[in-house]
Amino acid sequence: MSTDPLVVFTPSGKRGRFAVGTPILTAARQLGVDLDSVCGGRGICSKCQITPSYGEFSKHGVTVQDGALSEWNAVEERYKSKRGLKEGRRLGCQATVQGDVVIDVPPESQVHRQVVRKAASARAIAMDPATRLYYIEVQEPDMHEPTGDLERIARALREQWDIPAITSAFPVLGRLQPALRKGAWKVTVALHKSHTDDKPRLVAIWPGLHEDGLFGLAIDLGSTTIAAHLTDLDTGAVVASSGIMNPQIRFGEDLMSRVSYAMMNKGGDAEMTRAVREAIDALVIDIAKEGGIDPSLILETVFVCNPVMHHLLMGIDPVELGQAPFALATSDSMSLSAAELGLNALPAASRIYVLPCIAGHVGADAAAVALSEEPGKSDDLVLIVDVGTNAEILLGNRERVLACSSPTGPAFEGAQISSGQRAAPGAIERIEIDPVTKEPRFRVIGSDLWSDEEGFDAATAGSGITGICGSGIIEAVAELRIAGLLDDSGLIGSAEQTGTPRCVPEGRTHAYVIHDATATGGPRITVTQGDIRAIQLAKSALYAGARLLMDEMHVDKVDRVVLAGAFGAHISAKHAMVLGMIPDAPLDKVSSAGNAAGTGARIALCNVAARVEIERVVGEITKVETAIEPRFQEHFVAANAIPHKTDPFPELAKIVTLPPVSFNTGGRGADGEGGRKRRRRG
Amino acid sequence: MSTDPLVVFTPSGKRGRFAVGTPILTAARQLGVDLDSVCGGRGICSKCQITPSYGEFSKHGVTVQDGALSEWNAVEERYKSKRGLKEGRRLGCQATVQGDVVIDVPPESQVHRQVVRKAASARAIAMDPATRLYYIEVQEPDMHEPTGDLERIARALREQWDIPAITSAFPVLGRLQPALRKGAWKVTVALHKSHTDDKPRLVAIWPGLHEDGLFGLAIDLGSTTIAAHLTDLDTGAVVASSGIMNPQIRFGEDLMSRVSYAMMNKGGDAEMTRAVREAIDALVIDIAKEGGIDPSLILETVFVCNPVMHHLLMGIDPVELGQAPFALATSDSMSLSAAELGLNALPAASRIYVLPCIAGHVGADAAAVALSEEPGKSDDLVLIVDVGTNAEILLGNRERVLACSSPTGPAFEGAQISSGQRAAPGAIERIEIDPVTKEPRFRVIGSDLWSDEEGFDAATAGSGITGICGSGIIEAVAELRIAGLLDDSGLIGSAEQTGTPRCVPEGRTHAYVIHDATATGGPRITVTQGDIRAIQLAKSALYAGARLLMDEMHVDKVDRVVLAGAFGAHISAKHAMVLGMIPDAPLDKVSSAGNAAGTGARIALCNVAARVEIERVVGEITKVETAIEPRFQEHFVAANAIPHKTDPFPELAKIVTLPPVSFNTGGRGADGEGGRKRRRRG
Repeated sequence: MSTDPLVVFTPSGKRGRFAVGTPILTAARQLGVDLDSVCGGRGICSKCQITPSYGEFSKHGVTVQDGALSEWNAVEERYKSKRGLKEGRRLGCQATVQGDVVIDVPPESQVHRQVVRKAASARAIAMDPATRLYYIEVQEPDMHEPTGDLERIARALREQWDIPAITSAFPVLGRLQPALRKGAWKVTVALHKSHTDDKPRLVAIWPGLHEDGLFGLAIDLGSTTIAAHLTDLDTGAVVASSGIMNPQIRFGEDLMSRVSYAMMNKGGDAEMTRAVREAIDALVIDIAKEGGIDPSLILETVFVCNPVMHHLLMGIDPVELGQAPFALATSDSMSLSAAELGLNALPAASRIYVLPCIAGHVGADAAAVALSEEPGKSDDLVLIVDVGTNAEILLGNRERVLACSSPTGPAFEGAQISSGQRAAPGAIERIEIDPVTKEPRFRVIGSDLWSDEEGFDAATAGSGITGICGSGIIEAVAELRIAGLLDDSGLIGSAEQTGTPRCVPEGRTHAYVIHDATATGGPRITVTQGDIRAIQLAKSALYAGARLLMDEMHVDKVDRVVLAGAFGAHISAKHAMVLGMIPDAPLDKVSSAGNAAGTGARIALCNVAARVEIERVVGEITKVETAIEPRFQEHFVAANAIPHKTDPFPELAKIVTLPPVSFNTGGRGADGEGGRKRRRRG
Repeated sequence: MSTDPLVVFTPSGKRGRFAVGTPILTAARQLGVDLDSVCGGRGICSKCQITPSYGEFSKHGVTVQDGALSEWNAVEERYKSKRGLKEGRRLGCQATVQGDVVIDVPPESQVHRQVVRKAASARAIAMDPATRLYYIEVQEPDMHEPTGDLERIARALREQWDIPAITSAFPVLGRLQPALRKGAWKVTVALHKSHTDDKPRLVAIWPGLHEDGLFGLAIDLGSTTIAAHLTDLDTGAVVASSGIMNPQIRFGEDLMSRVSYAMMNKGGDAEMTRAVREAIDALVIDIAKEGGIDPSLILETVFVCNPVMHHLLMGIDPVELGQAPFALATSDSMSLSAAELGLNALPAASRIYVLPCIAGHVGADAAAVALSEEPGKSDDLVLIVDVGTNAEILLGNRERVLACSSPTGPAFEGAQISSGQRAAPGAIERIEIDPVTKEPRFRVIGSDLWSDEEGFDAATAGSGITGICGSGIIEAVAELRIAGLLDDSGLIGSAEQTGTPRCVPEGRTHAYVIHDATATGGPRITVTQGDIRAIQLAKSALYAGARLLMDEMHVDKVDRVVLAGAFGAHISAKHAMVLGMIPDAPLDKVSSAGNAAGTGARIALCNVAARVEIERVVGEITKVETAIEPRFQEHFVAANAIPHKTDPFPELAKIVTLPPVSFNTGGRGADGEGGRKRRRRG
């Protein structure tokens, strides 16, 4: 039996006996303990900080004596005086084993640390980025053994880091020689180890020890907005978030109008590709500035997007996505460089990863939602809807996962709504209508006060009250229905029928006035019959998509519902259910996952194994095509009512009583909305 | 024992028994017989043409009866009527085995056919290009199994060609969908299988069967000229050759002045990179036009060049190559795309292969010479000199190969010579001086007549007599020495000393007048003392390099000498030896290899295995650095004389007697050339 000292690491519990004098970092490596190091044990990067425990530790069966580690040394002293070191911390590469010892590896010294997301429901992200830093000391060139600088860098990585072979990104080749000489043959290199390449790729080099970190971007490229999270690839922290409008909007509001633009205009696809790439370049510069970093430190970007955005980003004409059978040029994930993708704000060698698409209408964004929400690991049957200009819908459990996409249009985002606007200060986001008085109260973005509370006017004086955003319009329509101002076919009653002067004539139909500031030169904010129809179309599409998946799964109900999407985060579950956006479910089983696609992008950015995982998962998802499925049309028509009458709605009944009203009477209805409604139903 | 018919293939001699009805192509594949096919046996590409032999073949022990193959069928008839088929030929995919048969595979039906080079000494190139065509029939997209078009292409290649997996070059992604639809799901793809990638890469796609071929460029990127061979990657034939001046000349005549330009001018390296890439683009367009093909069909390019040209092509600052220890940024071979290299005339996905460099002064051009001339496979000791602005020198045999580079300067190319010019019509390329009368006769490029032959004036009236090219100046200096007009120190005698009025005063020294047309307004072409000195410097550098390698090899003589380089092809071995350019060797052991670097590039272009080979060989070559080797200086100084006196020269004595003259007498010598010569020797 060995008499070498015993070393126990926490929190892993890994243990082993090591000869006196073995550095803790060496012991950790031999045991496979997750202890970080960039400088390879030279005492300059401080990544390998550990905390030794002294005293008796019966839990580990170890009694740690003073002197179990070597004494504090000059390297540690220099590091501490120069940059500081927390009390009790040692450098794992300097402290050596002298006796039995328990060593705690704090989270910040772990490579694969967990990053806890802010939202309560969210799962942690395990850090395992594809790109990592390595500090190396490179042999100087020798005329009598004239290998290139790259080849000597490769040798240093082999000898000092056990990395058998590398390749180099072409744009980095010109940077090797200046960096090596400036750093006096000591450099830090960034290696990108993709899950598809057999060798790591050299993507950046800096003289000496690089201490400015390494960053990645998770980009959710939507039809309407482009949202990015700048992430520290060491800690996993989001250091800046930024979003801009997708400039392709000028070519068409929704996906199909952009596909049409490409079909009708020669070079139209290239024009849209240029526009989106320029916007991403601008976004990169903005977000780097916001995060206070140089864009040259952004060495990875993960994109999630729907198939049309995917093709336009890649420079592929999306025309095939506009017609059955909706063939993708490529459905697999893609790995390429920023230079190949024509992004100029990122370093040319910076790596791009695009998640795989599920089908011609179900894109990498849906794949990202699947990565984030993991329906395939759910014990109960979960319905996940990612609400945007298109709704991505996933339904599944451990057995099977189905996916489809439904063309909801932009109404849920406040577009094509008479008083609609983007979610910005001044927009009505919450609304309640008193069932008795039929009077509204509301809240606007930028203030926590309701409109009937004291101080509301002062609080909103800055922004004013400018319109209704997506979540506001949903609440408004649902509240109108609860208050009996709307019948189940979606028709707004007249003042006479409803008993409130807020129901005013608007053309041949009626509108409900939420807020009227015309007397003081301000806006009049109403919900018109047209708005109701737009929301009905959108929610019918969403509901029909969900129903189609339920049919496919042979179920009539789901166990829980997850609302995803930036917008999904703000929808009130109660109102969504009143509206009939989502299938009937217990209210406490409806949750919000925030921007799940964006989260999926962040996971893929921070954890390379997640890329393998999602590529596998995507292959196992059953894709359901809504566009040519006759039952989708049937569900869509049946889902038009608020709420529709084809289902019993026991859960909805627990929340709210919907008055059985019908305004579809008299001459006006015959050639007005009633007639239109009937035609639509036919 | 099987009673299936016996099929014997010639010339391979491979044989096997196959069931009646087996297509010949199938039989060939199962036996590993090299029988080409692009369409995969569909009877449309005609690559698998074979010639069955009938009658008795005792050699193969087979008696072939009529009816040993299936009857001529409709597919063959259609092909023949549409495109013609040689008498006796069948399509291997259509003709099936019916009885014992001998099948000849003609050279043009072999993938790995041998391409015999024109030059007598040249070895054949075995065709085995990295890029090949595959005709496939792709499954149409299906909404219920929504894989991308690329993924279905990959499946077709797997199922129809046994290629397990591919990747796609990014720029090709946008071309897949139009090609598939235009070709009604039948396409031809070009796959590039590099020796370093694990999967073939899709680099081009065409609708239907692509019949316009596939081409590659072998480019010898020299300091002074850029020469390209456009090669048919199917047949190996050179379909066009073209050369242009390297536009970097305006930044400096030789390599070191270009390195200086980069050091002295900020952005100077980028300027030179841009210039050379633009020139290559222009060359690509020119050569494609000359070859009558579309540049989009050029899917591969192989570059050979010296290290400075290599770095400037790659966009790497060559400054480190200008000073010891002459460190290359990278010495390994490189594989990249035309887009990465910033070449716009080639398809973006077109592949580029750059041969490895041997050392900071011994480049990919020397590697190419090694690939072409194979010193490492030589039984006897061979010295190979590739003469250009720099001379690449290889010395070796099966045991060991040494390499160095020697800065000869541009004198051998006619530059820095008073009457010097490029090798073009009107340039004197051959010269003889009568040892008795001291009168010259010469030939100019563009005419086969000597100047004293009848019709010479008429034949050269067009071009005139405009100057002396590189090979001409070497002959001139050597002939002056043989005729006793030059002493062994390189001094031209006066008219008095030599007895010919052609030796005229020129400043403080003398010049020899070869041709004087000043009376009729034409040029006077002379060899001046300065010209002699320039040639002496160049030949001393070349000789010193060779001697340095011989020292390193511990030999005093070599068995044979190969003169390579476009210029080397025109040097007279006798005159080179008189001049002392090359070590003493039997005249019949001095041969010319033509443009060996260009040949090496062609070999690497046509045969992917040759890339593996040269990468291995380069690792085994011992590099000798001339620039800092004291013995190089000693050899250089000692080699100044014509011929120098430090060697016995038995072989030279068999060719010619050199008169022992010395003009280094009198006052003129003391402060003129004689003094300079002495200083140089000191």
